[in-house]
Amino acid sequence: MRRLRFHVAYDGTDFHGWQVQPGFETIQGTLEEVMSVVMRRPVHIVGSGRTDAGVHACAQVAAVSIDNSIPTSNFRRAMNRLLPPAIRIGHVEEVQAEFHPRFQATRKTYEYRIFRDEVCSPFECRFVHHHPYPLDESAMMSAALLLEGEHDFTAFAAADEKRDAQNPSLVRTIFRSSFSRTSDKLIYQVTGSGFLKHMVRNIVGVMLEVGKGNFTNDDVRLRLEPGCGIRPGPSVPPSGLFLMSVEYD
Amino acid sequence: MRRLRFHVAYDGTDFHGWQVQPGFETIQGTLEEVMSVVMRRPVHIVGSGRTDAGVHACAQVAAVSIDNSIPTSNFRRAMNRLLPPAIRIGHVEEVQAEFHPRFQATRKTYEYRIFRDEVCSPFECRFVHHHPYPLDESAMMSAALLLEGEHDFTAFAAADEKRDAQNPSLVRTIFRSSFSRTSDKLIYQVTGSGFLKHMVRNIVGVMLEVGKGNFTNDDVRLRLEPGCGIRPGPSVPPSGLFLMSVEYD
Repeated sequence: MRRLRFHVAYDGTDFHGWQVQPGFETIQGTLEEVMSVVMRRPVHIVGSGRTDAGVHACAQVAAVSIDNSIPTSNFRRAMNRLLPPAIRIGHVEEVQAEFHPRFQATRKTYEYRIFRDEVCSPFECRFVHHHPYPLDESAMMSAALLLEGEHDFTAFAAADEKRDAQNPSLVRTIFRSSFSRTSDKLIYQVTGSGFLKHMVRNIVGVMLEVGKGNFTNDDVRLRLEPGCGIRPGPSVPPSGLFLMSVEYD
Repeated sequence: MRRLRFHVAYDGTDFHGWQVQPGFETIQGTLEEVMSVVMRRPVHIVGSGRTDAGVHACAQVAAVSIDNSIPTSNFRRAMNRLLPPAIRIGHVEEVQAEFHPRFQATRKTYEYRIFRDEVCSPFECRFVHHHPYPLDESAMMSAALLLEGEHDFTAFAAADEKRDAQNPSLVRTIFRSSFSRTSDKLIYQVTGSGFLKHMVRNIVGVMLEVGKGNFTNDDVRLRLEPGCGIRPGPSVPPSGLFLMSVEYD
């Protein structure tokens, strides 16, 4: 058996997220269906993690084990010929049989794009959250830095986030958390050791409250205290969120 | 009565073109429906010309006559609140009662975007024609210049293009016809006094044949001879085509 690692880019707008769900069109489901045709036998692929319905990826990382000798470039071409244009296979390489995209990931980077002008271009509307109302953007830039470091992110996790053997604590390390500005967009970039379900959207939701003047830096600090008991939220729509990259040692 | 001129940007992917067609979702139809709600009476809007199903616009120009005193900025906001995000009203201004977006247009500019890399980004696929195969791009750049000037474009018109009182000849003047290159796209830009149905896509189709080595500059010149009798085509998909601007004296 050979193990292939590949990058997947997708416009998540019209999909019910990454993970296979019977009766729904998902990224993983579409990839497995097309790959089964290319490989002429059922295949199972593993991703670096789920993305929610409507969330995009520039370079999700996935892996598959195959038992034939197809060259990686032919694999990519055959897949892209059959996949819908909203899903594209990028870089493909052969890796060790033990490679696991989720368990071995050491860092992930997400980006959240907030469109700030009054009129949002129809060519960008699928890929941003449109928020043309006043925001104290420098307060948001300052608050974002508070998330850097190792923290308990319970107050930023989905209400149904589970602790289990593979996920014993809700402590994560954030290496970078910052906003930057383009002419028409406010962009949040966050790199961490791992992310809980809904975590990035819940962070951006809290940052927007800071921008609106509803929350101070102390409200953010409080949410990072273990056992603070504050319920997650508010959140923001999935359209602005991109999984940008996944790193491995 | 007041006359408003406004810009419309749209992602044409999911629409059956500009013009109202019973039973189909069109740009003009959607605008008239939403505007009738905003104005609380049936309205009729006129555009600078039709665009085909799947063709986009950065700044289509349209006009409407209204009998109330709504400020132009409120008009834009009210429209954009009710329109689907794939259609956006941009600049709005009050003009003379006689303004007609089609009859008074003096120049139009179109752009056709050809994506050249092997893998087309899912964030761009709605807005390009993906052609990753070899092309002699400098031959195309040179051939494009032959179209500049006043020519009979019968060999680039739709098979059903009609000559009538408003369109007595198929002679048009092209002020600019050129290709440029970005890192991953070959972009055709054309500015003319007016365009026949399917004309830009038929031009790009012929230019692609030049790029593939199937046509020479003489084949292009021949098609510009009045009475050459050559049937239009081949054409290219609508996804790469944008109406960029419409000018008035």
